[in-house]
Amino acid sequence: MSGKVHIFDSTLRDGSQAQGISFSVHDKLKIAAKLDEMGVSYIEAGNPGSNRKDLEFFTAAREELKLTQAKLCAFGSTRRPGSRVEEDAGLQALVSAGAPVTAIFGKSWDFHVTDIIKTTLEENLAMIKDSIVYLKSLGKEVIFDAEHFFDGYKHNPAYALTVLATARNAGADWLVLCDTNGGTLPLEIYSIVSELSGRHGYTNLGIHCHNDAGTAVANSVLAVQAGARQVQGTFNGFGERCGNANLSSIIADLMLKLGYDCIPADNLKQLSAAYRYISEVSNVIPYEREAYVGYCAFAHKGGMHIDAVNKNSASFEHVPPEAVGNERRILMSEVSGRSTLMAIINKIAPHITRDSEETQRILDKLKDKEYHGYQFEGAEHSLELLARKELGLFQHSFELLDYKVIIEKGNGSGKSPSLAFIKIRVDDMIEEVGVSDEVGPVNALDKALRRALHKFYEAISQMYLADYKVRVIDSDSATQAKVRVMIESTDGVTSWSTVGVSTNIIDASLQALIDSVEYRLINK
Amino acid sequence: MSGKVHIFDSTLRDGSQAQGISFSVHDKLKIAAKLDEMGVSYIEAGNPGSNRKDLEFFTAAREELKLTQAKLCAFGSTRRPGSRVEEDAGLQALVSAGAPVTAIFGKSWDFHVTDIIKTTLEENLAMIKDSIVYLKSLGKEVIFDAEHFFDGYKHNPAYALTVLATARNAGADWLVLCDTNGGTLPLEIYSIVSELSGRHGYTNLGIHCHNDAGTAVANSVLAVQAGARQVQGTFNGFGERCGNANLSSIIADLMLKLGYDCIPADNLKQLSAAYRYISEVSNVIPYEREAYVGYCAFAHKGGMHIDAVNKNSASFEHVPPEAVGNERRILMSEVSGRSTLMAIINKIAPHITRDSEETQRILDKLKDKEYHGYQFEGAEHSLELLARKELGLFQHSFELLDYKVIIEKGNGSGKSPSLAFIKIRVDDMIEEVGVSDEVGPVNALDKALRRALHKFYEAISQMYLADYKVRVIDSDSATQAKVRVMIESTDGVTSWSTVGVSTNIIDASLQALIDSVEYRLINK
Repeated sequence: MSGKVHIFDSTLRDGSQAQGISFSVHDKLKIAAKLDEMGVSYIEAGNPGSNRKDLEFFTAAREELKLTQAKLCAFGSTRRPGSRVEEDAGLQALVSAGAPVTAIFGKSWDFHVTDIIKTTLEENLAMIKDSIVYLKSLGKEVIFDAEHFFDGYKHNPAYALTVLATARNAGADWLVLCDTNGGTLPLEIYSIVSELSGRHGYTNLGIHCHNDAGTAVANSVLAVQAGARQVQGTFNGFGERCGNANLSSIIADLMLKLGYDCIPADNLKQLSAAYRYISEVSNVIPYEREAYVGYCAFAHKGGMHIDAVNKNSASFEHVPPEAVGNERRILMSEVSGRSTLMAIINKIAPHITRDSEETQRILDKLKDKEYHGYQFEGAEHSLELLARKELGLFQHSFELLDYKVIIEKGNGSGKSPSLAFIKIRVDDMIEEVGVSDEVGPVNALDKALRRALHKFYEAISQMYLADYKVRVIDSDSATQAKVRVMIESTDGVTSWSTVGVSTNIIDASLQALIDSVEYRLINK
Repeated sequence: MSGKVHIFDSTLRDGSQAQGISFSVHDKLKIAAKLDEMGVSYIEAGNPGSNRKDLEFFTAAREELKLTQAKLCAFGSTRRPGSRVEEDAGLQALVSAGAPVTAIFGKSWDFHVTDIIKTTLEENLAMIKDSIVYLKSLGKEVIFDAEHFFDGYKHNPAYALTVLATARNAGADWLVLCDTNGGTLPLEIYSIVSELSGRHGYTNLGIHCHNDAGTAVANSVLAVQAGARQVQGTFNGFGERCGNANLSSIIADLMLKLGYDCIPADNLKQLSAAYRYISEVSNVIPYEREAYVGYCAFAHKGGMHIDAVNKNSASFEHVPPEAVGNERRILMSEVSGRSTLMAIINKIAPHITRDSEETQRILDKLKDKEYHGYQFEGAEHSLELLARKELGLFQHSFELLDYKVIIEKGNGSGKSPSLAFIKIRVDDMIEEVGVSDEVGPVNALDKALRRALHKFYEAISQMYLADYKVRVIDSDSATQAKVRVMIESTDGVTSWSTVGVSTNIIDASLQALIDSVEYRLINK
């Protein structure tokens, strides 16, 4: 073990400053509970001085949030120039949050002192000292965020060092070196932090990086190797501009590759799930290429890679996907050659080989479909149906004879129903169903199709849709664009994914719905 | 100037091994032309030995692609164990591509030699030597990719060094150190490359990193600082698993922060546009948090940040956005407080202040809308309409009385039209229009609305839709999920963006369409 590194998560504070993020109090409670479960040391949950909703959160947290591993932290600023701590609205709001830990930022770049908050260098030091002394007198754990530390150090090292010494002497528990603008490169971070922990003897340093130069994870890891013992960031890398340092990557790097102790070792297996959970609550699509936890992090597509991974997974995987609760995926595509497709074909037709004429026919069909906008990487079960059709191993469970959808709305906000009519044939029986639905046309179609089929196939009642995604494929042709609909269905035990493509979204949805139902009925 | 660093782009080869990427020959020609225009040194465009389409590309490139700055490179492997170079199918395909530069990879990790390709360590050295000597005898520039170099060096440094020396002695022009599995951390990269360029005296080193530990950009930059003079990667970071090192970040880091010469200095201003162009041709949504070039890279949301950037942009920007052809954006949200909203309000009502009761009312309305799934960060013009309505500064240009959409399809693949009926009132005149459209219901509605309005408003004929995006907001409730539709419209001179939200996609689309038309008519 290389020692303890405290993980300080700011998803709920700095993360909320990212484009597209808007947390409700309820969202924040859910994410805080998840971060605690993962075992981070600190959860920075808001800036009560600047945002009323954050104060609500801290009130709700006192009643509803039972933390077992993490400490809750409220964020604020040093007192304003010329104010007294007892009368400073920001500091008072910070205190009123009632969190056991307070993080306050102060300026360590002389330019920000003189040109942005427009006070003297001396007054800035007094603001830092007074604020820390005050918070310590109230029994708080105090984390001092030295804002713009690296830019400050590069422009005026003497002043930046004086700021740090002032905070230390005032009693701050942690001194956090912030690369606020995110533009400092790794070697600089390493050398400056080494200097502070070495020659200047600081032992309670933290690091806070942003990703504006694309190096936030590396910068954070290097700072730890140079002596920092607290890492600030956001679990999913959310944050102002290019985002904060991504803690999910940093935790894995530090624990799996450098032997540091960040969160309980067993929890690493929850890393990918926690990442996806936080994305979902934040209503942000998970970044598929994210290191360790992304959907593609262990996805292999090159033919040679796939062959080698089948022999020994360490050949093209830096860590086992299970170590971070992720999964290996073998992708279907022309680059991966036939081996992936063969796995699907041989599931339904074991005798067919790579070189069979049928394999070539299926590949041709696949490429043709891909050319028209289909994508089977996330819809393997539509691909299985395609293979079955080409091999003559598919029998329609039903035939769709007609459908009709009517969406009608008068003026005003009252909801009007969508109407869907479906006419199907099963053997020589014809069934016609019409439903009216308040939700929308796709929901109405789904209902009508199931209702029509239910008479013939009991199994239909055990399946339901788990996910529905719409992607505009060529968006610059506007409303004439093709859309791709991906559907994930489940019967509670297994899941399957299907796809539909059309310029008409209703039609694309119906294609995916029909594939989903056909797949279920074939495999019932 | 710190010297020349050669940029080697593998978007068309390693990039094509990413999930979701499938280039046509035409796509590849477009991307190659763009990379050449940007001034990279090498364009690795395919693996002719493993992929027939890649060979087609090289044939097409000879006729259609006129490179002025970059050299075209074909990728392949050393000869197979026990084969002769003249008879090795892979090498022969590589040669037949006719590119002036060839990159061949060979194994430098003993485990891969013995356990994956299953040959002897000696034969592996002979494969490397023979292949390089052969390609040099044909007059090619030869880049040797030492696959898994860092893993190999850590496990068996003597063998990894012998591999490098063998390649050098055989006449390779470049020796590229590959972190193929992407798991090596920055400090290791720095120290190993320093060792090679220092003690071992290598001067023609390249670096090839993957992002599995989240540190590929940093690793590449550190390798250059340690002496490497070629950087391999992909312009947008596409690639197997977590992707290759992102060249757009690396180029900016090396040129703007370290003074290296990578591409012509003036071309840096095209960096963001090139990134977006390559994303578009690749049909991949640009990653909004991408360093330097992402849509959010210079987006400010925190209130204090916005105030400071207004005073001096260097306060929260590490480089000026113009330096990389990007733009500063000030985001509207509850975090940014009132200053952003005020800019919009004051555009239409200059007398209203931050503390006006009207401002509060608009903010409340905004938050309520956001709570219901609207998002105005990318739809500022719907927000302007909302403000106008609250301030009584909005007059409907028309009233939508009714609409009805019918989508009908019989069995078979023949297209069936979508029908849209629209009934509007302008003053006391009522206009009813019905259209039939092959594309789909949204296109039909758009047509009907314009046709109905055209009689009253000439201006309608000068606007058209430039972009249409659909996002499922809460996808786990499947077809009952809400969708958010964002529309960008243009009249060829200015553009504007509007939003609609509903569980019913037709309804959401119509909301956005109506806002778009209303906005145009108010500002006509």
